[in-house]
Amino acid sequence: MSLNELTAEMLPALEAELQRVVARLNQPHTQAYHEMLTYHMGWSGEGAGPEATGKRVRPLLVLLSCQASGGNWLHAIPAAAAVELIHNFSLVHDDIQDNSDLRRGRPTVWKRWGMPQAINAGDGLFVLAHLALADLEGKFPPETILKVFRLFDETCLDLTRGQFLDIAYEQRADLSLEAYWPMVAGKTAALLAACCEIGAVLGGADETVQASYKSFGNYLGLAFQVQDDYLGIWGDSALTGKSAESDLATGKKSFPVLAGLAKGGAFARRWAEGPIRPEEVPALADRLAAEGVKLLTQETADQMTDLALAALRTADPQGEAGDALFELTQKLLGRQA
Amino acid sequence: MSLNELTAEMLPALEAELQRVVARLNQPHTQAYHEMLTYHMGWSGEGAGPEATGKRVRPLLVLLSCQASGGNWLHAIPAAAAVELIHNFSLVHDDIQDNSDLRRGRPTVWKRWGMPQAINAGDGLFVLAHLALADLEGKFPPETILKVFRLFDETCLDLTRGQFLDIAYEQRADLSLEAYWPMVAGKTAALLAACCEIGAVLGGADETVQASYKSFGNYLGLAFQVQDDYLGIWGDSALTGKSAESDLATGKKSFPVLAGLAKGGAFARRWAEGPIRPEEVPALADRLAAEGVKLLTQETADQMTDLALAALRTADPQGEAGDALFELTQKLLGRQA
Repeated sequence: MSLNELTAEMLPALEAELQRVVARLNQPHTQAYHEMLTYHMGWSGEGAGPEATGKRVRPLLVLLSCQASGGNWLHAIPAAAAVELIHNFSLVHDDIQDNSDLRRGRPTVWKRWGMPQAINAGDGLFVLAHLALADLEGKFPPETILKVFRLFDETCLDLTRGQFLDIAYEQRADLSLEAYWPMVAGKTAALLAACCEIGAVLGGADETVQASYKSFGNYLGLAFQVQDDYLGIWGDSALTGKSAESDLATGKKSFPVLAGLAKGGAFARRWAEGPIRPEEVPALADRLAAEGVKLLTQETADQMTDLALAALRTADPQGEAGDALFELTQKLLGRQA
Repeated sequence: MSLNELTAEMLPALEAELQRVVARLNQPHTQAYHEMLTYHMGWSGEGAGPEATGKRVRPLLVLLSCQASGGNWLHAIPAAAAVELIHNFSLVHDDIQDNSDLRRGRPTVWKRWGMPQAINAGDGLFVLAHLALADLEGKFPPETILKVFRLFDETCLDLTRGQFLDIAYEQRADLSLEAYWPMVAGKTAALLAACCEIGAVLGGADETVQASYKSFGNYLGLAFQVQDDYLGIWGDSALTGKSAESDLATGKKSFPVLAGLAKGGAFARRWAEGPIRPEEVPALADRLAAEGVKLLTQETADQMTDLALAALRTADPQGEAGDALFELTQKLLGRQA
């Protein structure tokens, strides 16, 4: 069974669980609150549908890791729902913090319902994630569930650490590459690492194997982010016609930007002079490439990908779910395993 | 041992635990994040000290309920820290949502560090509350801790329900008294009910007794809020010299305001015409009293107080902690038990 076939089984079960958890708010007095969450999750309102839900990569990692490490993915569904809800909590708050108008092509929650309600809607997703996790009860021993709770909240704290750094960095001009990793570790890698680790815990893997799954998720997250940063400057849409969306124009402190600042060359001097205009973007992207940063970024993404694959091989995932984990890695990172 | 003597024992232990939990952020890269939380908690920055910490009523309810229902309050300290952290999470977000500049006489977190960091600081307190709860491990059976987790997160969901209603009500002119209870149940009563219930669960009380403690906390919260609403219009500071701080001037949808709107008299007609100017406040407060609302508000607070005391008697709290619970109720509600 391929990744696609497993996904076709898993996603409907996940979606049903997510809707069941969010439906706790579908009650007298709070229906408008419920609607904010179903809108954000991609189930209701204009533009609802598969394009609006996101790819649900994180819950798939939980389910595949559980199955591949000896468990039954059906029992891990509450934990898969929890990580997806946490991811969406962070998106709702992130959109307020970044003043973003659009998310997956639709108006953001704060844009539609105002900032105060959007803060509260994010808080609601955060709580629902924890209530989803509590639904593991009866399927696993209490000790296992408590371990997952602790792991989950340690990860949430990492998310807020990464978000703190991301916001703090906006104001700073003195950053270089060493500032990158703690931010990305929190914002991207921590949750992916937790997905794989939680899957392995629920799959009944021993602690060494749990650690390998965690390491796989961590490097998968780092590789994905560095590659995403690469595409944010040298990807097709960043270079052709959509220069205003380039990370150079938005001022994002991405890997190539921080690497370019560390070089202290022409790119760094231009960056220090203030915001980049869209018409400058193509030439500045070339400049950055000429300073060796394009190659460095690609090499770094490749290194992280190698580390992810090595950790996954060490974890030795079994069966079709195991194959699907390699396939998912390849799909996310665009590389042959 | 009186309430004061018990408090003098409990508060230092609580404060030490709170500081220990928050110190998870006192690490390289995140010290400024840590500082936001220690500032908000009243431990650092200008104006730090007892005036800035708040009264810690909620954790005291956990500890006293635990001790009075047969437990050892020292073991319940992590849960007491958790409810205080959740309370403070809600204050940090509330101050953003209400656009409040001051909290306990000091600039609010968003005022000092900006809205994006303040949203994140609130999120951090939310996570830390859960990590505090996880520290019950080893002191109680895993099943008990999972029960407390579930109860805690159900309560957090109630908090967001109340907050949703509070924000939604600001825009609405068609409200009457029936809109009041679901909002106050979520915003104030749910957390106080959970404090007492969690205390009883950790104290080893049976389920009937747990329910009585929960009921006590619920009515305590309702009584406290109605009384607070009373003071917001007819209290000394609302009437003398600080009319701008009267709930009439701020437009808060408090119990007396909603009761006045339900009367459909002169008060309701004036309210419908738009914001109340400070110089109108004393006469309008008199108008509301003449329409019977002052008496109704006092009677309602008294009824809720009676229900709280009846529930507490049913819970039959034992020993000095039991006496202290009656004393605390009296202190909070200004009434003889």
